[in-house]
Amino acid sequence: MDTAVDLHSPLTEDELRRLDAYWRAANYLTVGQIYLLDNPLLREPLRPEHVKPRLLGHWGTSPGLNLLYAHLNRIIVNRKLPTIFITGPGHGGPALVANTWLEGTYSELYHSVSRDETGMQRLFRQFSFPGGIPSHVAPEVPGSIHEGGELGYALSHAYGAAFDNPDLLVACVIGDGEAETGPLAGSWLSNVFLNPARDGAVLPILHLNGYKIANPTVLDRIPTDDLLDMMRGFGYQPYVVAGDDPATVHQTLAATLDRAVDEIAEIQRRARSGGPVERPRWPMIILRTPKGWTGPAVVDGKQVEGTYRAHQVPIAEVRDNPEHLAELERWLRSYRPEELFDPTGAPVAELAALPPTGDLRMSANPVTNGGRVLRDLELPDFRRYAVDVQQHGEPAVGATGVLGAWVRDIITANPHTFRLFGPDEVASNRLGAAFEVTDRAFVANRVDGDDHLSPDGRVMEVLSEHLCEGWLEGYLLTGRHGIFTSYEAFIHIVDSMVNQHAKWLKVTRGIPWREPIASLNYLLSSHVWRQDHNGFSHQDPGFIDHVVNKKAEVVRVYLPPDGNTLLSTMDHCLRSRHYINVVVAGKQPAPNWLTMDEAIQHCRRGLGIWDWASTDGGEEPDVVLACAGDVPTLETLAAADLLRQRLPELRVRVVNVVDLMRLQPPSEHPHGLPDNEFDTIFTRDKPVIFAYHGYPWLIHRLTYRRANHDNLHVRGYKEEGTTTTPFDMVMLNDLDRFHLVIDVIDRVPGLAARAAHLRQEMVDARQACRDHTREYGEDDPRVAEWRWIRETDAELRSGQ
Amino acid sequence: MDTAVDLHSPLTEDELRRLDAYWRAANYLTVGQIYLLDNPLLREPLRPEHVKPRLLGHWGTSPGLNLLYAHLNRIIVNRKLPTIFITGPGHGGPALVANTWLEGTYSELYHSVSRDETGMQRLFRQFSFPGGIPSHVAPEVPGSIHEGGELGYALSHAYGAAFDNPDLLVACVIGDGEAETGPLAGSWLSNVFLNPARDGAVLPILHLNGYKIANPTVLDRIPTDDLLDMMRGFGYQPYVVAGDDPATVHQTLAATLDRAVDEIAEIQRRARSGGPVERPRWPMIILRTPKGWTGPAVVDGKQVEGTYRAHQVPIAEVRDNPEHLAELERWLRSYRPEELFDPTGAPVAELAALPPTGDLRMSANPVTNGGRVLRDLELPDFRRYAVDVQQHGEPAVGATGVLGAWVRDIITANPHTFRLFGPDEVASNRLGAAFEVTDRAFVANRVDGDDHLSPDGRVMEVLSEHLCEGWLEGYLLTGRHGIFTSYEAFIHIVDSMVNQHAKWLKVTRGIPWREPIASLNYLLSSHVWRQDHNGFSHQDPGFIDHVVNKKAEVVRVYLPPDGNTLLSTMDHCLRSRHYINVVVAGKQPAPNWLTMDEAIQHCRRGLGIWDWASTDGGEEPDVVLACAGDVPTLETLAAADLLRQRLPELRVRVVNVVDLMRLQPPSEHPHGLPDNEFDTIFTRDKPVIFAYHGYPWLIHRLTYRRANHDNLHVRGYKEEGTTTTPFDMVMLNDLDRFHLVIDVIDRVPGLAARAAHLRQEMVDARQACRDHTREYGEDDPRVAEWRWIRETDAELRSGQ
Repeated sequence: MDTAVDLHSPLTEDELRRLDAYWRAANYLTVGQIYLLDNPLLREPLRPEHVKPRLLGHWGTSPGLNLLYAHLNRIIVNRKLPTIFITGPGHGGPALVANTWLEGTYSELYHSVSRDETGMQRLFRQFSFPGGIPSHVAPEVPGSIHEGGELGYALSHAYGAAFDNPDLLVACVIGDGEAETGPLAGSWLSNVFLNPARDGAVLPILHLNGYKIANPTVLDRIPTDDLLDMMRGFGYQPYVVAGDDPATVHQTLAATLDRAVDEIAEIQRRARSGGPVERPRWPMIILRTPKGWTGPAVVDGKQVEGTYRAHQVPIAEVRDNPEHLAELERWLRSYRPEELFDPTGAPVAELAALPPTGDLRMSANPVTNGGRVLRDLELPDFRRYAVDVQQHGEPAVGATGVLGAWVRDIITANPHTFRLFGPDEVASNRLGAAFEVTDRAFVANRVDGDDHLSPDGRVMEVLSEHLCEGWLEGYLLTGRHGIFTSYEAFIHIVDSMVNQHAKWLKVTRGIPWREPIASLNYLLSSHVWRQDHNGFSHQDPGFIDHVVNKKAEVVRVYLPPDGNTLLSTMDHCLRSRHYINVVVAGKQPAPNWLTMDEAIQHCRRGLGIWDWASTDGGEEPDVVLACAGDVPTLETLAAADLLRQRLPELRVRVVNVVDLMRLQPPSEHPHGLPDNEFDTIFTRDKPVIFAYHGYPWLIHRLTYRRANHDNLHVRGYKEEGTTTTPFDMVMLNDLDRFHLVIDVIDRVPGLAARAAHLRQEMVDARQACRDHTREYGEDDPRVAEWRWIRETDAELRSGQ
Repeated sequence: MDTAVDLHSPLTEDELRRLDAYWRAANYLTVGQIYLLDNPLLREPLRPEHVKPRLLGHWGTSPGLNLLYAHLNRIIVNRKLPTIFITGPGHGGPALVANTWLEGTYSELYHSVSRDETGMQRLFRQFSFPGGIPSHVAPEVPGSIHEGGELGYALSHAYGAAFDNPDLLVACVIGDGEAETGPLAGSWLSNVFLNPARDGAVLPILHLNGYKIANPTVLDRIPTDDLLDMMRGFGYQPYVVAGDDPATVHQTLAATLDRAVDEIAEIQRRARSGGPVERPRWPMIILRTPKGWTGPAVVDGKQVEGTYRAHQVPIAEVRDNPEHLAELERWLRSYRPEELFDPTGAPVAELAALPPTGDLRMSANPVTNGGRVLRDLELPDFRRYAVDVQQHGEPAVGATGVLGAWVRDIITANPHTFRLFGPDEVASNRLGAAFEVTDRAFVANRVDGDDHLSPDGRVMEVLSEHLCEGWLEGYLLTGRHGIFTSYEAFIHIVDSMVNQHAKWLKVTRGIPWREPIASLNYLLSSHVWRQDHNGFSHQDPGFIDHVVNKKAEVVRVYLPPDGNTLLSTMDHCLRSRHYINVVVAGKQPAPNWLTMDEAIQHCRRGLGIWDWASTDGGEEPDVVLACAGDVPTLETLAAADLLRQRLPELRVRVVNVVDLMRLQPPSEHPHGLPDNEFDTIFTRDKPVIFAYHGYPWLIHRLTYRRANHDNLHVRGYKEEGTTTTPFDMVMLNDLDRFHLVIDVIDRVPGLAARAAHLRQEMVDARQACRDHTREYGEDDPRVAEWRWIRETDAELRSGQ
């Protein structure tokens, strides 16, 4: 296959000259940001005090980014093709800032950084300067939907942005460092899920500049034929642009981009002319240019250009070393700034006319400020999907299954702006109703017997949490909606991606021109308590702890105890903006506690007393049984029932918590319950036995400033688990109903003596359940129903 | 290139017959485990009560695993080639258990599960049964170094096992589901780091059985030519074995394995005959066989074999559905158990003679029980590398740089059993001294100007935390030692891998035949407080919180405040066994506080009072200034100095914490400090201002059961950061010396009025520092040194 485009020269002499000048301007502005405090146009000889005292920034990747940006501008202007730019090598922040300033967007959004000498001086000074802007492609950079700190997610973000954006081209630059990461390596085959008829196009541009911080890059050092094979293997048609002579590279890159964009247009034309959609061979580009190209070749006798030494600041100690200062000045002047900027400091007219204008600027494309194009979801009234709860606890149906029907109708009502993402677990997590109206998206080979698989599917399933997360983030950041459903334990796989997204949300709250985007919604099912069949490796509720470390203004955690509360919670989440919502819910048949009206009211409060399960008669209780999570709620209600039967004089209050953040004081979280309300519910001095879904310490952390904290006793997951039965799992972690009763007996003053017999019964019941489990391989049938206690009470009383 | 091996038939009729019988036996034992409680040899007609009440397990992948295991046995016997088996599709637990029972290892380790009818019945019953064994390839399975729960790490574990094991073949089965994950996709190019002269060989076997839980797999549905290109692109020579006729597949697989192992032998012979080492084209195998092969083709009119329906239990509801029961019996009898097992239930002699014996059995290879082959490291006396601390705080050198020299000499002293792993950050984290004695391992193309790069290098650098972690885990699990050094923020990338390793360590503590392995040691540098240049995306101290959720018996966290304490801490970690040690240390020049003798004593205690920095004269203090982490320690000592100058009558006690787990009660962690000692140090009722490296809540969590907890005020990272200066970072998070002084004034009863002037000075000093930073882009020079307070006290006093 042909991998190098014919070396005809699409650029006229004049076009070449202007394109190169534009590139030089961007490079000049990049170096200026890294180095200069003042004298931005070099109107006078460079002096030490013109140079920043602390030199920060990444030069190495920047000339390549500037080159690509300039050439993509040419494509956009020639074709009126809406295009966005994903900067995988996001450390090259100054390059992107330079380009957005050149095309005017930067000054429009940050007025003081005007497109003149004063603005240029501010542009330079603010970069990596305290009170200024970060060194990476941060949210502050217009046109960015991809923070350039942690590496690995450029390509999955690009695909997420392209989904359902049929007219969009997403140019995605992938550094050869980033290409070594697992998440990036797993992203290439995203093209199996991209429908050329419905979705936009992604043009991956692998930038081989050869080195990382200290090492060569792997993809630069394997045989080129292998690299081409690899890209073909991923389903792309690779084109190589390589060189270190600017004029030659300009011509080759222009020709190659023309060809790639022509091919994309042809692919889309074919796919959109009716007929079955097949997986095309999308073009991709391998750009091999020197690291730190056009920078100083040699510094202090050591080769810099084209090596790892060009990674960050190629000339250090400029203030104190006159030779370095002279070298920097030579470097800056090599771009001939006097030809690039007019006397006011603005780009000369010829350059200013080069980039696209208005929304066609990559820095101003509306989808890169997703909130601008975001529309509310059409949400069917969730009340219509309610479980008909006739009495508390009935019927027993799985919560996520209840949700499934509603999600199905959301998909129908929002055919272009909502998708469901999951690692092959949508049906397993009981959202299979979605497949009544849509399929799993899949553009590669389909065969008879496949289950709901088509290029038009709106369920995105791939066995990669990284891809699901990256796609969804890209989808949200460009103004759409979605849900990520995953096994609870394995969502830790994307801990680090969630960190970065949370940081993005936090920072963009402070950037006035960034409009709020739809929240990132996690529906975690197959949770820790119902991984009894998969065992210990599948049991981990720690994702909640992880997200709670992020800024309170960004994070929400919900533990709806049944189907109706799950519906109400998800309705709230899908209407919300700019949050990370973590919802944990069960998929197995389980009791439903609240009617829809009760559920709505309960979710609105976030937590509340369940009078119908309490025996305190509305007065001060002897003990509070609190619970959060579906399985802990079941065990708590069974314990309350036991206590009602056996210690009817004990005043027990049952409190259920849906919105975990309500436990914190308002000073810590906007959802925090005021202290007086908290004290009213949890009392100031009575024992609270708290049955919690996850690691117990989190409840202590959330409540440690509450008056009654010292009386709080939390049961939860303590890393005890294996392949066993559901009830054995809760017993292994002392979260079972019997143990909760024991806790009550042990904690309520004066009860131990009075209830010694009951306590022993509870110990015996635990042993009996364990023995039954070990003998029969299944739970004692009496614990399958929460009401068994009532029914078998007589039996238990008799001492068996 | 040739991808299918010539269809000669290396197996004689008799060999084929026996190999197939062995495969049938393993398949029979697999199905038996999933289904049977009793009647293991089908001596009587199958009745409902012979079947488990709860059917768990994964059939789909198992026949393929059994096939490969049997064929690899043939290779091992023929060539006496030590081989281990990595089960990427680890859900196929019963397959591996079946094989280890067939070759006798299982019964040797678990006597009651003998190789006879009684044992077989126990083998069947225990599988996925409460009190029995997990359903995956868990640590309980002999020969496993790879828990099969979470997917993605098979190939990196395989390479880690092969490093420095020149005579070992690591056969690594990769499921086509797992192949979709990012971490697995990023593992193929591990061959760039494997030296055929020094290391063993990895034979990747990609098992395409076409389906996951509900979806087809991506690699099964792209064109085969693309898949072959991809594998060539990764540097492998792929061979395809495909089919659904057992006899044909047996012959093809045998021929292909012969060829692959021949090629490996030839590669190693060439590499080991002297001369430069080049990157060979290693063979790999693509095995394409039906999912659930040999299982029921159709159940209830639906195709099962070869589809996703074969993923778990292909025939459900066997107890209640007589047709299903009959189908199960037909299936079991199709393997003709009467030919496979003798009247006692043992494998017939012909089969028992087939697998290798002794340590050549893959289930008994000593490296798979790493502790058995583990030898103590040769550790140079770390005292010899001490910083010469003449007075507290001097000299200022970076802690990790101090460690570097010692690490260098560890590498020299342990040329075959110790490696350093990091994502291109070893030099950046100041461990560059290692390169005085070794290189970065790299087997692909090297060019002039590369920095310490060679096939013999013992530093493993690749821009993938997943690969570093997976390689190191594989290396440790096979009985060697190592350190993983990473930027603190990005170690979250492997949160989920750490989870799984922690679970492995926890479980293996309870398996008597598993010997303890070397600890997994993290050295996290470039930490949250010194990512001022990289900004917000690089600032996250939450990995500590993440690991603290794991079992206390497995987890250790250390925050040495300087070079000598870091040396002492790492010496302890490298001698320890079966832990996860997290060590956070700075790399920037910073004060050194303790002489080596003091450091050793301090680390032995884990925390302690620094008398020389305190003004309590050994009596009850007015306030305790506690600190953990290098930057918080600096700020605390600066605050203590300020207080000494300005409020000389205030009795201040300075406490430094190295071993974070000491803060917990002994009931929570084996390192926990007894309450009386804790109270002696932290007092029972005085304010404690705790300056902590990470998220403040962790300190509350660790101490919430302590008597003085309500007086504890913790400062730490609260997600405030950007690109700024080092001191501005601590100010943004209220961790700076001035704010600590303000905290003291606000918390010590009665001090507020007396010290109002000082308080205002502190507020002004903060503002002055901020102004200076914003103006000059660098910290006020007075805060660069911890003793500046003393020196500039007069100036401060004067009100400036």
